[in-house]
Amino acid sequence: MLIKDVSLLQSGAILKGRDILIEGNRISKIGRDLKDETEEETIDGHGKLAIPGLVNSHTHLAMTLFRGYADDMALMPWLTEKIWPLEARLTKEDVRWGVKLGCLEMIRFGITCYNDMYYFMDETAAVTKEMGLRAFLSGVLFDARPELTGEAEAFLKDWSEDDLIHPAVGPHAIYTCSEETLLRARDLAEKYGTMLHIHLSETKGEVEDSIKKHGQSPVEYLDSLGFLSNRLVAAHCVWLSEKDIMLLAQRGVNIAHCPVSNLKLAAGIAPVVSLMKAGANVCLGADGASSNNNLNLFEEMKIMAIVQKTACRRPDVMPAEEVWKIATENAYKAFGLNMGLREGALADLSLIDLKKPWFTPETSIRSHLIYSMTGGVDTTIVNGQMLMKNGVIPGEAEILERAQAQFERLTA
Amino acid sequence: MLIKDVSLLQSGAILKGRDILIEGNRISKIGRDLKDETEEETIDGHGKLAIPGLVNSHTHLAMTLFRGYADDMALMPWLTEKIWPLEARLTKEDVRWGVKLGCLEMIRFGITCYNDMYYFMDETAAVTKEMGLRAFLSGVLFDARPELTGEAEAFLKDWSEDDLIHPAVGPHAIYTCSEETLLRARDLAEKYGTMLHIHLSETKGEVEDSIKKHGQSPVEYLDSLGFLSNRLVAAHCVWLSEKDIMLLAQRGVNIAHCPVSNLKLAAGIAPVVSLMKAGANVCLGADGASSNNNLNLFEEMKIMAIVQKTACRRPDVMPAEEVWKIATENAYKAFGLNMGLREGALADLSLIDLKKPWFTPETSIRSHLIYSMTGGVDTTIVNGQMLMKNGVIPGEAEILERAQAQFERLTA
Repeated sequence: MLIKDVSLLQSGAILKGRDILIEGNRISKIGRDLKDETEEETIDGHGKLAIPGLVNSHTHLAMTLFRGYADDMALMPWLTEKIWPLEARLTKEDVRWGVKLGCLEMIRFGITCYNDMYYFMDETAAVTKEMGLRAFLSGVLFDARPELTGEAEAFLKDWSEDDLIHPAVGPHAIYTCSEETLLRARDLAEKYGTMLHIHLSETKGEVEDSIKKHGQSPVEYLDSLGFLSNRLVAAHCVWLSEKDIMLLAQRGVNIAHCPVSNLKLAAGIAPVVSLMKAGANVCLGADGASSNNNLNLFEEMKIMAIVQKTACRRPDVMPAEEVWKIATENAYKAFGLNMGLREGALADLSLIDLKKPWFTPETSIRSHLIYSMTGGVDTTIVNGQMLMKNGVIPGEAEILERAQAQFERLTA
Repeated sequence: MLIKDVSLLQSGAILKGRDILIEGNRISKIGRDLKDETEEETIDGHGKLAIPGLVNSHTHLAMTLFRGYADDMALMPWLTEKIWPLEARLTKEDVRWGVKLGCLEMIRFGITCYNDMYYFMDETAAVTKEMGLRAFLSGVLFDARPELTGEAEAFLKDWSEDDLIHPAVGPHAIYTCSEETLLRARDLAEKYGTMLHIHLSETKGEVEDSIKKHGQSPVEYLDSLGFLSNRLVAAHCVWLSEKDIMLLAQRGVNIAHCPVSNLKLAAGIAPVVSLMKAGANVCLGADGASSNNNLNLFEEMKIMAIVQKTACRRPDVMPAEEVWKIATENAYKAFGLNMGLREGALADLSLIDLKKPWFTPETSIRSHLIYSMTGGVDTTIVNGQMLMKNGVIPGEAEILERAQAQFERLTA
């Protein structure tokens, strides 16, 4: 596959008129006047910007089926009256269409890889593969449902060799998992060499309860279990002490910051600038569509940047280039992905149409991507495969219809 | 003009299969199986939602030409090193293409009316009329440029009879306008029966300076001048005392809340929930694209809602229906506009394509409009005129090119 005459970013500058040659699942060459010997597919990149894939570092993709079902509610009634009753009736088929719907949306926003925690992970893996996305998938672990732990190990074994699907281990949180479950999860991840995924210090209440129960913050408690390492993706990390921040940085924990979800659920504002200063690896996540309600990392980037500026009372913190790094390179590091717009990297990338009001005038393209862009990307390629070309995703209309029907069945 | 088989919202419910008949500049009928005797233009509304026009209650439209020129900077260097030097060289022609670019973007986001304060208002008015939008336009008044006051009165006279352009009076702020200028502005607005437009209590520094100088908050000071009334649109209102909130509500002042600009410039978070509780009329604005950096009220709605939830530590404040009212009915009230999707109202409306992942499943359409929608509207009609049909705005490519050329000239 060959992308002709496209623009791309290099160290903040825009390079025009470049060609990108994709062979197999890799970018094999970037330059001028390249030829594709296979002549399989040539894409006109004129007036478009190529960007490397974005990574949605924390989500519950099947919950896209619940989008807009319950909003503007306090946390406990939202869970007990709305979300848990739906989840109690959830079937594999619901997960199938929720995941497909979520994949559609991520493809439209240039997200080529996501990190998930939910139920029915076998189905999620199969559907993600059908849709062509890359994913790190953790079946959620809860003490209340001990059978999930056995399923988790089977899932690790079954998907250990896939090129797109990376199985991982996802104990839900310290307030839903016993020490035994947490240790078991840690050991499973080490045994199979996989990532770990947990919700951490999301609410003030979680921290207060931990101090009451363990005499330690959630971060300190997990550290005492040897749970903190660069294998871990810790979602949220809103309520952190200075010591927590130091620990997360020192242990190399990857933080999946979810600004929209945190704001919408009134969880709070994570100390992202302090985390970055301490050297922690901060990434970005959309969380589930039931608490967001979309899967648009461009929106997360803008909201993270402007909210941090106000939280720090300094408009010069979180400049555009730092924001962009969080959504791309920091995530590649977290998940060990050889991604980026360079020769030899995985062919996970998108094209964005620059002939739009929000990209005019041509001042700082990086700034436009974060502060003014809207409406998603134009073309998305993952692992060398075309998933969307010029705004068209094959089968989209059917997915929208089936997701609607599935939601009606679930809530009937 | 006839829109066939469209969906619309009524008291939160979605009504499908309705027709909207537009005659002249009004909605003349909403119902089923309507006929258009003129047979001028019929629009297929199947799978689309009609919404009434949104109002951008505070902006500086020509500054769209500066989009992305300077970001992530502290306020004073941003103004002194970047914005003021550009403005010192600004010509009528720059304003022409900046305003055209801004109109394009507003049309794409379903904004049918805007409230502006800037230089070269004659040109802004002429261009806005060419583009077909409705606007309230104030030539900015500064003590430093006394000649602007004379121009302001001429502008009020020249445009007093237009059906789209409503001239208004815009003293910049209490820290740039003397008491004499403020009183002159107030009297001009009364004499010509127009709106007043001012920046108010945007930063903590503005409030501290006012207390030092006048022994009063900016709101109290303006009240002492008889400046507060329902004729006034006060932009920002971030730093307010309890007494300020009461005064603004009691005097019927219209507040143009600009959440993205306030966050991006680190001005702070306006007490919107307290203002609403006190009965103040809160509207929404995008501010200039140089501090936003787009003109997308859907984004403002989402960010206002989620930031207020966290500021109040309550996810149930600012529910979707209240947010929608702020962007529509509150603004119609502020500007005395007979707008809304009902018979007899001005034909200012948009159509949105519902066959998108972010509108699936069909749960709460109001919630989707605020929390998940992306990418703007499909079709925009203002004053009975079609400005964009199925995503196409005639002349858009030329405007993008000319705006780019004009920016290059300005910064050469």
